Parts: sequence; structure tokens; C-alpha cells
Amino acid sequence: MSGAGEGTERGIGIAAREKHPPIAKRGVIMPASPIRKLVPLANAAKRRGISIYHLNIGQPDILTPQEIVDAIKGYDDPVLRYGPADGISEFHDVLVEYFAGRGVNIRQEDLMITTGGSEAAIFAMLAVCDPGDEIVIPEPFYTNYAGFAVMSGINLVPVETRVEEGFHLPPPEEIESRVTSKTKAILICSPNNPTGTVYTREELERIARIAQASNLFVISDEVYREFVYDGKAHASMLHLEGMDEKTIIIDSISKRFSACGARIGYLLSRNREVMDTVLRFGQARLCPPTVEQRAAVAGYRAIDRFMSEMIAEWERRRDLIYEAVNKLPGAFCRKPEGAFYTVARLPVNDTEDFSRWLLEEFNVDGKTVMLAPAQGFYATKGKGKDEVRIAYVLQEEALADAMQILERAIEVYSGTVDVGERRASKG
Amino acid sequence: MSGAGEGTERGIGIAAREKHPPIAKRGVIMPASPIRKLVPLANAAKRRGISIYHLNIGQPDILTPQEIVDAIKGYDDPVLRYGPADGISEFHDVLVEYFAGRGVNIRQEDLMITTGGSEAAIFAMLAVCDPGDEIVIPEPFYTNYAGFAVMSGINLVPVETRVEEGFHLPPPEEIESRVTSKTKAILICSPNNPTGTVYTREELERIARIAQASNLFVISDEVYREFVYDGKAHASMLHLEGMDEKTIIIDSISKRFSACGARIGYLLSRNREVMDTVLRFGQARLCPPTVEQRAAVAGYRAIDRFMSEMIAEWERRRDLIYEAVNKLPGAFCRKPEGAFYTVARLPVNDTEDFSRWLLEEFNVDGKTVMLAPAQGFYATKGKGKDEVRIAYVLQEEALADAMQILERAIEVYSGTVDVGERRASKG
Repeated sequence: MSGAGEGTERGIGIAAREKHPPIAKRGVIMPASPIRKLVPLANAAKRRGISIYHLNIGQPDILTPQEIVDAIKGYDDPVLRYGPADGISEFHDVLVEYFAGRGVNIRQEDLMITTGGSEAAIFAMLAVCDPGDEIVIPEPFYTNYAGFAVMSGINLVPVETRVEEGFHLPPPEEIESRVTSKTKAILICSPNNPTGTVYTREELERIARIAQASNLFVISDEVYREFVYDGKAHASMLHLEGMDEKTIIIDSISKRFSACGARIGYLLSRNREVMDTVLRFGQARLCPPTVEQRAAVAGYRAIDRFMSEMIAEWERRRDLIYEAVNKLPGAFCRKPEGAFYTVARLPVNDTEDFSRWLLEEFNVDGKTVMLAPAQGFYATKGKGKDEVRIAYVLQEEALADAMQILERAIEVYSGTVDVGERRASKG
Repeated sequence: MSGAGEGTERGIGIAAREKHPPIAKRGVIMPASPIRKLVPLANAAKRRGISIYHLNIGQPDILTPQEIVDAIKGYDDPVLRYGPADGISEFHDVLVEYFAGRGVNIRQEDLMITTGGSEAAIFAMLAVCDPGDEIVIPEPFYTNYAGFAVMSGINLVPVETRVEEGFHLPPPEEIESRVTSKTKAILICSPNNPTGTVYTREELERIARIAQASNLFVISDEVYREFVYDGKAHASMLHLEGMDEKTIIIDSISKRFSACGARIGYLLSRNREVMDTVLRFGQARLCPPTVEQRAAVAGYRAIDRFMSEMIAEWERRRDLIYEAVNKLPGAFCRKPEGAFYTVARLPVNDTEDFSRWLLEEFNVDGKTVMLAPAQGFYATKGKGKDEVRIAYVLQEEALADAMQILERAIEVYSGTVDVGERRASKG
């Protein structure tokens, strides 16, 4: 094998140290995915024959609706060509229809189809912020926003929300106190990943009033729009009067259609300058994937067939997880209102250590549980150390078994381990 | 319809002007695709019943190989899940094999699968440059690099190459004179879009020596690696000794497999720090599309079946275009050595004006030609005004007809139109 192994060094001293230029600062500070950090330990556990319940990642096990599968299988273009930079027009049409059916009027030109919600988020950030600008965001928040912020040179300024309050928004003064002359936007996500919180219309209005007063954009991640339980309706920034020019919606089919690998999302704004700007970003990268756009169109056309069943399934799982968490001695979470996550407080000092221990040292009948330590969802150092995000993405039986294993794990971990000693011994 | 129409203004004066915050500076300076700028005129011509030969865009008409189509149609996962951030392992394996078959040893971990070559290019830029840093690049160059540079805050510093010299590289001093303390990389593309130039091994060594002397990365876009004519072999940066730590290859299946809409590419480097950095960028956006990665694997497995036939077809078209351009009175191009483009000098003062005129005012028997004015491929203002990029992406008969139309167009345009007057009258 060729390569840059130690045997192929062609010099020593300065020459060797300068064998390549330094990585960019933004590359150095770019965070690794905290969700994926534990993956090597999980792989090692699997090699030892341990089965793992993955409560750590938002990958649903719900079947991708057949209409979407059929649209992919039905692919029949002789040439798989570039599509339009802003997406195929059928997709614009079907989204206009989808929103009209929900009482929201949008136009084709308000839409830019993107490669996943990820690209929508980064385009939104690039469009409204220059390097050094700030975005105010309730924490804990979707961890990849932090990565996009580093890539685009933006500072995320967190506003604390608390497990005791079900991670609902604090009073306006607390949010406003984070706004500076560099603030360009407030970024919210409702239903929320990682907390499962659904903001009320009153909370959205609170955000809107701050945006009006300080002339800020509101970037609203509505990826989980349908995932609202207990018969409640989702309040969207699109419902608010007077916010047309300031609102940027980001969305994705990944969760709605259980099609995370499709990489299809969109950005929606009635602000023409925003749309003109993101179109130019989009032109540079040519187009989103064509086949999956067609699949997404098929998904939206069939949404009424499968969505209510899908949501009922998520709601049953939510009920199960909520009860199971609060039955764990010393654990706590408020009832998640949407999405398929909850951030729960556990009776351990350091959930990162506990999550490692679950993978490295613990099992019940050859099974263990993988969790996402909540620290990775906080920008403020030290926050969330006794919290985990639980993604209830497994079938009820598996979830119930996983939560029993977790209960046993907490007993063992609390009873036999001195956390301080453990950390010291690992250096 | 709701929206931000003029009728819905809620105030005048300052309030109205401040109805939304300003777009970011990088959003304002982000270039529109110069290739797509003429699209509205082309659409208008089509509405008037005019047929257009599209020589303006690198969208091949070559059939996507059946193996790729079959792989898409063969999709059968019950859940379309997230793949690994750096791509599926079968794709890594097949690329290692592909390179081994071409005498280049790489390892799985040297590869990061990306959403198109576009994402590979932007990840490479983000990894090696901070905002304000510089990349030296021969011009004319692939126009979207300029967009990626704006998105990542990088300054592209052009080195002139000339149509008379077939756009081959200038002497080392000319390239070195562009290197400053802010230069982090040299970006090359061979076979070249837009010029069709294939750098010799000596030219690559020239670049490598400069990179060694000034400790720079070399980002080498090898998207057209197979598209080399006249029986010549492609020289890759991967062939050069001592460059393992400094070389970043970007690549894409778009042209190789006539699958532009798949959005699959990759970044390849033997530099561990680079790969670790781009992996973290990749984790933030989760994964590239899964279905097309499988299709790409099928394409690489079948590459020996279809590639030589595909290249022979491109070479015939190349011959046709080369002859036809040089038969145009006053036009000139050197014989393109690779890719499927040439930048030709035309006997007109302003090819942007000429290209608009072709769409707005000219036709032969209801047919006209769409060209890409070369100015959009130069960073230096005023350069390339009498040049166009011709993408010979049509079948031979169509190409021949298009070039006859172009010949007639030049006669008409030169004989009857005072360009100065035309421009003045358009304001």
C-alpha cells in the first residue's frame, strides 16, 4: 500500500513538520457529531456479541411509505440529468397544494428544494449572516446547527430552556437579553429535536414580537411539523401576520416520510431577496438529487393515506417512553408534545460516562442500550451533564425492553460505581 | 394569495424599508450562474416556437449506463435510512479497486463520499482556508468555484492561461507571483472545464514544486479523468511522489456515468487531518443520498463495459467541433485534449451580446444555438469577452447542424449589426 505511513517520511525536523499546511481554524474547531462519538464503542460491543437498542439516533424504524419506494423503483429516464437548481416544478406544485390544504397560501417561487433540511439550514445561515454575526437559539438544540454555524462563521448565542419547564421558552426579557447589534436571526425548532417540545402559538408570537422589535429574521425548523400529539395542532411561523418578510422555514422529508437517506428538504420564504439569494447558493451546487424529488412528490400526494397512522404509532411510543422514564427512580421528563425525542434527567452525574459504561461494561442477557448524552445539545459548557436525549424510534416491545434494561443499568451504575474514581482511572 | 406583494405594505418610509433585515454581504455578492443567466431568453425563444441547440451546459445526452438505471430501479429497502456520513462502505471498496486497476493505491479511509463534486469542492475549501485566505487558480475556470469561494469567504486569485496556448499553464514564475502569505492552495482541473485542456505530467510537476516550495495544498478536480483523447493517458496528482500530504482530489460520477442528477461525488486525500476535518463537515449534513450511492457502485463495477465506447463517442464529437470551430471565419480554438468542452475565440466583440442576440433575434429554419459566454469563467474583469465555451454534448448530426447555424449567425451578426449601437440601444 502506498500512502503517508510513517515508513514513507522523506525528511525530519522542520521539513517533516511542514509536510502539509495547517488545516483551517474552522476545520479545527468543527465539532464532531456528539451522537456519533460513541459509535466505535457500540461497534466494539457488537463485535463482542452484544445487541444494542439504539435510542441514540433519530433514525425511525417506520417503513418508508410504499408510494415513495414505488416512485424510486419506477425511475425510467434514459439520462439522469441535472434538475433545476431550485428543484423540479412538480415538487413546488405539490408543496403549494400541501400548504393550501393546511390553510397556508404560498407560491411556487417561495420554495427552494434542498439536499436535505441540512442544506436548507446552512443556506439560511449563509443568507442572513456574515462571519462574526450571531443567531439566538434556545438550548438544548439540534446539534448539527453548531456544525453549520462553524462552517459559516456564525456564533450561536444560546437561551436556556429547562427540563422542569418542558423546555418551553423563557420570558421575552431573557431572550431579548441575548440580542446584540450582531444578532441577525432567532433560530427555533418546533416540534423540537432534541426535547420533543411543541411551542404554543403564544410562544411563536413572543418570538415574532422580538424579531419585529429588533428587526431580526426568524429561521423556523419545522421538520417535525406533523409530529404533534394529544390532538393538538401545530403552530407554524407561517400562521403569523406581519412576519412574511422575516420568516424562513426549513423542512425535510426525512422524518415525515421515514426517508432519511433521500436527502430532500426545502427552504420556504416569502421574502424575495432571501429566495433570490438562496437560489444563487443553489445554482453553485447545481441541483438536489432528481430521483428522490420524484419520490418526495409521490409521498406528498399520498400523505393523507399514511400520515395519521404514522402519528398514532409515534404517539403510542411517546406514551410508553414518558411513563417508563418517570418510573425510573430519580429520573424525570415532562410529557413530550411532539417529534420523537425527549430530553430526560437521569440520576447520574455524567451521562457521557454512563453512556460509555452502558456500551463497554453493561448488558442484560447480552443486550444493552445506546443513549445520546445531552451535553452535545447544549452550547453552554457544563449544561445537560445529567440529561440524555432518548429517541423513541423503535417498536413498542423493543422500547419497553430497552427501558427495563436502562432501569437495571441505573441501579447497577449508581450502586457500584464511584463516578469520580471512574473518570480518574480513564485519564 | 398571501405574500409580500406591494398591496400588503404595512407602512412607509423607514418602517417599510426595514421590513426585513439586510441580506448578508456574502449573499449580496454571491454570483448568479452565468450559464443560467440566459435561460429566461431561451425559454422565451422556445415559447416563440424556436428550437435551441444547447451547447451552453455540460449536460451530456449520452444514455446513463443500464447498470446504474437498474440499481436505482432495484431499490428494495423497507426503510430508506441514513447512510454513514462518509458514504457506504461498498462504495469505498469499489473505488479502492477502481484506483488499484489504474495503478494507484488508496485506502478506504482516504475517501469521503459527497453530494456531488460540488460538495467535495466546498468541503476542500472549508478545510484548508479560513475567510480571507486565498486559492491560486488558472483562469478561465469552472464558474461555480467562484460561488463556493464566496460561500466560504475565500479569494480566488487567477493565473492567466490563453486560448493561443490551448490554455496550458504559464511558466512557474507567473504562478508563483500570485502566491502570498494568505495563499493556502492551488486549485486545478484537468481535463479542464471549460477549456478541454489536459495538463501534462510536467505541468502537474510544476504545480507540485510550487506547492512544495510554498507549503500549499493542491486541490485537483479530476471529474473528467477518463475523458482524455488521442490515446493519451491522464496524469493525476495521485501519481506524483511526495505529494500525498498536500493533495486533495475532488471527483464526481456526473459526467463519467452521465448521471448529473445523481449528486454523487467524493473527496480523496491521504492526509489524515484533511480527512478527519471533512468527515466532521460531512457528519453535520448527515449523509449523501443512499440510492444513488448504490447506483454509483453498480456503475464502477460495470465501467469497463461502457467507458471506452463512451470516450470514443466523445472523441468523435471533439473532432467535429474542433474542425467546425476553425472553419468559422475569424474563429479559433486549439484541439481540445479532454473533457467535452472547448473555449473558442469568435469574431465578435462581446459574446454575451452575441449569445443574447442568438436567442432573441436569430434563427435558421426555426432553430438557433445557445452558447456560454466565456466571461463568466474568468475572474479578471474584461477577459474572455470574445470567447465562448462550447459544450459538445449533443449527437454528431445535431452538433454539425448547430455549427452550421453558428456560422450563418456570425455572418449575419458581423455584417448587419454595429455592436456599439446595439449595446447603447439596450441601455
